[in-house]
Amino acid sequence: MTQPLTIIGSYVSPYVRKVLACMNLKGVSYQVDPITPFFGNDEFQRLSPLRRIPVMIDGDLSISDSTVICAYLDEAYGGSPLLPADPKDRARARWLEEYADTRLGDLLIWSFFYQRVVKPLVWGEPADELRVQKAVDEEIPAALDYLESQLPAEGFLFGEIGLADIAIASFFRNAHYAAYNIDASRWPRTATFVERTLGHPCLASLLPLEDVQRNASIKGRRQALIDAGARLTETSYGTSEGPRRGMMQL
Amino acid sequence: MTQPLTIIGSYVSPYVRKVLACMNLKGVSYQVDPITPFFGNDEFQRLSPLRRIPVMIDGDLSISDSTVICAYLDEAYGGSPLLPADPKDRARARWLEEYADTRLGDLLIWSFFYQRVVKPLVWGEPADELRVQKAVDEEIPAALDYLESQLPAEGFLFGEIGLADIAIASFFRNAHYAAYNIDASRWPRTATFVERTLGHPCLASLLPLEDVQRNASIKGRRQALIDAGARLTETSYGTSEGPRRGMMQL
Repeated sequence: MTQPLTIIGSYVSPYVRKVLACMNLKGVSYQVDPITPFFGNDEFQRLSPLRRIPVMIDGDLSISDSTVICAYLDEAYGGSPLLPADPKDRARARWLEEYADTRLGDLLIWSFFYQRVVKPLVWGEPADELRVQKAVDEEIPAALDYLESQLPAEGFLFGEIGLADIAIASFFRNAHYAAYNIDASRWPRTATFVERTLGHPCLASLLPLEDVQRNASIKGRRQALIDAGARLTETSYGTSEGPRRGMMQL
Repeated sequence: MTQPLTIIGSYVSPYVRKVLACMNLKGVSYQVDPITPFFGNDEFQRLSPLRRIPVMIDGDLSISDSTVICAYLDEAYGGSPLLPADPKDRARARWLEEYADTRLGDLLIWSFFYQRVVKPLVWGEPADELRVQKAVDEEIPAALDYLESQLPAEGFLFGEIGLADIAIASFFRNAHYAAYNIDASRWPRTATFVERTLGHPCLASLLPLEDVQRNASIKGRRQALIDAGARLTETSYGTSEGPRRGMMQL
């Protein structure tokens, strides 16, 4: 029997969530090695030279970068397409995915979630509150203004739900975990779009597993995830030796 | 007559060079608005929310991000394919493009070329020599070790020259402009691969235009580029009001 497709990465990472939601949407079966961000071992580093999660292993192919993985899934597997059919729409969808991964990543993850949740928890360091304030007061509102000009009032960006919708919405779940929620009176389209997209089964079904990953101790996590319905790998690329600097996405 | 495809961006940017080389390879005709990096006007900012170059305009589609542009070119236009045919090879090619754009960009551009060339020239500020030294002593050698394990001794990564080859090689031309050259005794594959790829007509033909962009004054540059054979737009998205902070790629 061939190994199912494997994803290495935490259920709480917005980039891992994007990939898992895309596989759920396409009906691709997979198993997960739910390593804690920053805890990859030497073999993990070989598979992911930039120490990024997610990493995907499919037979003799192992790659990192969520964008590259999703493009591969769409080309190698059937099921619902992740990108629209028209070349110009595909370009617009890829751009919005890139905007989410780069700009929403910078703001909602590195200037917010990382500061308020990861730094205290993983590194035992306080948040850079100046950076958080600048993001909340200026940069996140500017990004929300841009999204408000791009997102549809109803439905999804290109008809059926796809990669761009998932990529954008994914970051706001992490923002929510750090207690940032979109002001629906100021950005009504974005607020309802994000709620609608996160409520789609491909993303909503991941929520119980995210809750386990967030709340269970590292030691009890694998069993708790299995109890919650996750299909896990037998071995792990995680290390118990403590976190390492230098992972560029989480 | 329809407008030819338009690229906004400097010939000296590694990301612009990548897109232009891909169009040369495919035989797609184009015109260029050779704005100086950081000098985009308000309309430029509307087209490129992250103030990145290149921007591509093709009829009613305008997008930024060189990776998105190249994916579009490969899907919307004929000519030589930029990616190999097999899905796993396509994933490997996209990963190497991503590695180049992110990691070689961080090291060869932001920690080196930007410090040594752009900061003094555009901002009148000295290089961060600590950052340069760390890059030269540790980070660039580690990246070259990785490339040495990935690149072919002869020919190109996936048979014919394509996106991944071009993306990797492009960054080393900027490194060369800032007087960094690969030590061929330590990284022989990478050194010969980069030389071979930069010598391919799709990239070599851009060199005279890069020389003009680097050496002509801003005022005389458009005419000098036209004299050197460039096809330029009639109007420009550049401003003469001085550089603006915040462009994330150049």
